[in-house]
Amino acid sequence: MMYITRRETFNAAHRLFREEWDDAKNLEVFGKCSNPNWHGHNYVLFVTVKGHVSGETGFVMNLKELSHIIKTRVIDELDHKNMNVEVSFMRDRLASTENLAIGIWEQLEQPVRASGALLHCVRLEETEKNHVTYYGPDQ
Amino acid sequence: MMYITRRETFNAAHRLFREEWDDAKNLEVFGKCSNPNWHGHNYVLFVTVKGHVSGETGFVMNLKELSHIIKTRVIDELDHKNMNVEVSFMRDRLASTENLAIGIWEQLEQPVRASGALLHCVRLEETEKNHVTYYGPDQ
Amino acid sequence: MMYITRRETFNAAHRLFREEWDDAKNLEVFGKCSNPNWHGHNYVLFVTVKGHVSGETGFVMNLKELSHIIKTRVIDELDHKNMNVEVSFMRDRLASTENLAIGIWEQLEQPVRASGALLHCVRLEETEKNHVTYYGPDQ
Amino acid sequence: MMYITRRETFNAAHRLFREEWDDAKNLEVFGKCSNPNWHGHNYVLFVTVKGHVSGETGFVMNLKELSHIIKTRVIDELDHKNMNVEVSFMRDRLASTENLAIGIWEQLEQPVRASGALLHCVRLEETEKNHVTYYGPDQ
Amino acid sequence: MMYITRRETFNAAHRLFREEWDDAKNLEVFGKCSNPNWHGHNYVLFVTVKGHVSGETGFVMNLKELSHIIKTRVIDELDHKNMNVEVSFMRDRLASTENLAIGIWEQLEQPVRASGALLHCVRLEETEKNHVTYYGPDQ
Amino acid sequence: MMYITRRETFNAAHRLFREEWDDAKNLEVFGKCSNPNWHGHNYVLFVTVKGHVSGETGFVMNLKELSHIIKTRVIDELDHKNMNVEVSFMRDRLASTENLAIGIWEQLEQPVRASGALLHCVRLEETEKNHVTYYGPDQ
Repeated sequence: MMYITRRETFNAAHRLFREEWDDAKNLEVFGKCSNPNWHGHNYVLFVTVKGHVSGETGFVMNLKELSHIIKTRVIDELDHKNMNVEVSFMRDRLASTENLAIGIWEQLEQPVRASGALLHCVRLEETEKNHVTYYGPDQ
Repeated sequence: MMYITRRETFNAAHRLFREEWDDAKNLEVFGKCSNPNWHGHNYVLFVTVKGHVSGETGFVMNLKELSHIIKTRVIDELDHKNMNVEVSFMRDRLASTENLAIGIWEQLEQPVRASGALLHCVRLEETEKNHVTYYGPDQ
Repeated sequence: MMYITRRETFNAAHRLFREEWDDAKNLEVFGKCSNPNWHGHNYVLFVTVKGHVSGETGFVMNLKELSHIIKTRVIDELDHKNMNVEVSFMRDRLASTENLAIGIWEQLEQPVRASGALLHCVRLEETEKNHVTYYGPDQ
Repeated sequence: MMYITRRETFNAAHRLFREEWDDAKNLEVFGKCSNPNWHGHNYVLFVTVKGHVSGETGFVMNLKELSHIIKTRVIDELDHKNMNVEVSFMRDRLASTENLAIGIWEQLEQPVRASGALLHCVRLEETEKNHVTYYGPDQ
Repeated sequence: MMYITRRETFNAAHRLFREEWDDAKNLEVFGKCSNPNWHGHNYVLFVTVKGHVSGETGFVMNLKELSHIIKTRVIDELDHKNMNVEVSFMRDRLASTENLAIGIWEQLEQPVRASGALLHCVRLEETEKNHVTYYGPDQ
Repeated sequence: MMYITRRETFNAAHRLFREEWDDAKNLEVFGKCSNPNWHGHNYVLFVTVKGHVSGETGFVMNLKELSHIIKTRVIDELDHKNMNVEVSFMRDRLASTENLAIGIWEQLEQPVRASGALLHCVRLEETEKNHVTYYGPDQ
């Protein structure tokens, strides 16, 4: 098994809040992240896939193909967007980094498998101080 | 003359657009940055001040004081905010990185001078690929 | 399971040596790190905790709470300190990066558990060329 | 178990191609990386070893010794070299990042074991966007 | 005056040598960089332009346009190339970082001027330890 | 004129204090940096020299020579040392980043001039949040 990782970036607006809570309760739980006027981040995404190294190409998977999958399935959906409002795979989810990582995993799992490798993990950095890593629903 | 620099970070939402232009024209000029639903960034701010090194303290200026000025005059105004809507010193300005750097300069120039040093430049990174540097209106 | 990581920094002085060895022996084993006049580092600490994502908040654990635990249990103890002399949880330990990571783990394991998550690993960078990772005494 | 990691850098030229394929086929599969006139990279290598922390030294393994092994077995072989032409352990391998990581693992596994620790993984960054991680043939 | 900077990356092979010197003399002056089999780097390029901030757009210059100029005039010429053999603007120059920065300046100066801004400087990083900055032939 | 910059690192212990002040006064002015038991940092040093590009070598100055000057004049003096106690060129100076930059400038100015280039500036990072830049006593 070899693990290869691709780094991509996007930026987006979001807000952490529950509709059924009033502003005071949202502020208490989510702090400044609940600002009703939105805020945003430069996200850094690391996608790791695993597989056997091909004797013919020396690759687990062509990085151009991996980059294309990430671009069409994730970056084009999220970049310069408001993830609470415009991103279909975040529609019914609180826009936390944790849930965004789960959404990204679900966008990538099938296309990576179809290309002959396996999605290993998704690492998502929201700021230089905070990141999450998700290994899928079976781990 | 010695130059000292402090690095601070904040994140914010914004949108590049002119109200008198329609969406198509805004999209043509500002691209994805004109998204009406906003997007956002982790901004990195470097503030450089200059002055003589004090024989008593070895400092141009106490960094705690510089950090406090930046925090109260800039970070508290911008962090987790929508700069088109909520930031008083950006009210009548297009929310470009250039204009944000000018706004930050204007917030800092007087308090730094009052502390005995001179503001030399403001460097503002919007993404890891783009930044601006501003040396004030006289340069 | 979701893994979330918080990055914090502190700086400290230390010295690698064994009291029962003379200076020559300490120099032979620990090199420049045994300097009797001390030296120091900017340490970078990554604390990773794991747990289930709450349906209510979208969080494994509120990062403000995690940051508060790290600050009170680790950063306040170590920052701008001499770890051989002033840090209670390093009292009877050689001040190596390995032992410091173990000490930090022991400081964090209980409070993280009390907050409803599990401490997964502690990664400690001493310089940009060297770091250690510790997954606890059971791994 | 404690994991310690050492970061080293080298730069080298290479080319991705199969001799039995013509230029058009190589270009189709390997893109710009098949340029017959070579291209090159600044590689960043992270070597992680694991073991028990010595009560006497506080070390898993003396980092000077680990650095010396990496330097003599890997860096001296690769730095400022053409890996397709001059590097014995890459002689019969396609010069992909995956295969280079395998080659580096094979260079390091025995000497690290002889020093009393175990090689855990090799992480090799080819560019800031791409890296591979290899845990050895048994994983 | 406002200064805006764009960061771009490329990788290339090169060799430092003078044809009229033999290998021993080249090795003496240029060290490992004279390896006849080539070596290579991931170069990081920072291009800074200056100008007045437009009241209409808030821009010194549209970054998409600056990025396009850099891509077509510099990156497409250098990326995944051998700069001694394939890059027209390096044809009669020793492939040092200094000369490469001068070549890049000459490629960019006119197109930036045509876009309404002025090229201020070119900063070129060859490795994380070495970079050069060039402000043009008049400075 | 071309500017070339070399990055080097060292780590050291220090303390900010004035002997004629008591501990309370030192704590008031210098905060945690006045800890009598010392603390320390990983310093990052950028040395920039300027000069004309040699037609023979393509260099302003051989980087090996610049690196050797920095190593023998600065790094060997400071690395793994206590700068208040052991570093001759810091003997009668408060150990602030500002004064350390001045001391480093004085160590480098003559040897760089003797090598045929001119020292342009010294940039010294104490932490990732703070750095100083010094252009010499005439600027």
